[in-house]
Amino acid sequence: MSQPSRKQVKRVAQRGRYDQETIHAILDASWIAHVSFADTEGQPFVIPMLYAREGDCLYLHGSIASRLLNAVSSGIDTCLCVTLVDGLVLARSHFHHSMNYRSVVAFGKAVTVVDPDEKAAIFVRFVDALIPGRAGESRAADRNELNATTLLRFSIDEASAKIRSGDPKDDPADRALPIWSGVVPIFQRFGEPITAGDASPGVEVPASVRHLCA
Amino acid sequence: MSQPSRKQVKRVAQRGRYDQETIHAILDASWIAHVSFADTEGQPFVIPMLYAREGDCLYLHGSIASRLLNAVSSGIDTCLCVTLVDGLVLARSHFHHSMNYRSVVAFGKAVTVVDPDEKAAIFVRFVDALIPGRAGESRAADRNELNATTLLRFSIDEASAKIRSGDPKDDPADRALPIWSGVVPIFQRFGEPITAGDASPGVEVPASVRHLCA
Repeated sequence: MSQPSRKQVKRVAQRGRYDQETIHAILDASWIAHVSFADTEGQPFVIPMLYAREGDCLYLHGSIASRLLNAVSSGIDTCLCVTLVDGLVLARSHFHHSMNYRSVVAFGKAVTVVDPDEKAAIFVRFVDALIPGRAGESRAADRNELNATTLLRFSIDEASAKIRSGDPKDDPADRALPIWSGVVPIFQRFGEPITAGDASPGVEVPASVRHLCA
Repeated sequence: MSQPSRKQVKRVAQRGRYDQETIHAILDASWIAHVSFADTEGQPFVIPMLYAREGDCLYLHGSIASRLLNAVSSGIDTCLCVTLVDGLVLARSHFHHSMNYRSVVAFGKAVTVVDPDEKAAIFVRFVDALIPGRAGESRAADRNELNATTLLRFSIDEASAKIRSGDPKDDPADRALPIWSGVVPIFQRFGEPITAGDASPGVEVPASVRHLCA
């Protein structure tokens, strides 16, 4: 990943981060990317897709109209964004209200993965990206299932991360105002597992799932 | 909002929802939209932006490169997506693993809001969209602050919602496998408010903020 023009964070430059470690950590903390591309008439589309990262590639699949997948897989330019929300930033002034967040914007091209062995390996990664250890507990995809699923490999050509954290930045002139200022953290939490209505009788919630909710 | 071609949910059609009430409820449950557009060469961009809804308009602003805001405000086609993640869906087979989610994809055009009174009114809505009641507790934007901020009005021409909820859909042939299946709910939670390091002394956390964390 180099650092050319498209990914430059122009505004609030101190929030821009470009090192690979930061970018990978943000990508590994989420499941859903917002994937955008334009059709031949310049009409943009953006859709949420599940992903799994491997190096500087993001594998994409999910419930998405096939025509859109086909458009991306033909190798047109693609841009995707992953965003994690960390808090509400409440300043003394409306103007300095904000959010704490971590985001990555990545540019590249996506191609369809056709090799069945590569597809099989990546579907294992998808399941383990949802919950580590889950792939080994559940039935791997058979040939029909692999054939029924379109998988895309998006190679990151350029990427940038943007992070806001910490206190609001109030104007010094507002510091005397008797208005509370601070941050309200936002967390993502797992609830108690809900066993399926048609679940296999006598099967306990596995350690992989219990570990999430600990 | 009509129901023409761009917004048709082609795949898993039973997940498509088009009524305005459903669409507005999803939009009102989040703060961040992923906004996409293409430049004149067809290069797509997607960026996270804060928004506030008013009727079938979404007002957008946030930390975004000015060149991007300017591109959108010129009235080019824009697509945005709001996604809420509700749970991990764990099936007996890799193939049927999924997420529960609610999402809206909306198409339209965005224009810059220049009227200072409209801008002032919308900035109040932005603050109250983060926390209801917060705008009245904090200092409203002055003329300089209004002038320093670009605000966009995105009018929804077409929109669709997509919702997945409930149990995994396992193949009947897998029902005898001794593998746990079910859903792990995902919630967004507020943590304890963190008062700013430069906070005004003696000011208590207001009811609006305490109410969030209750």
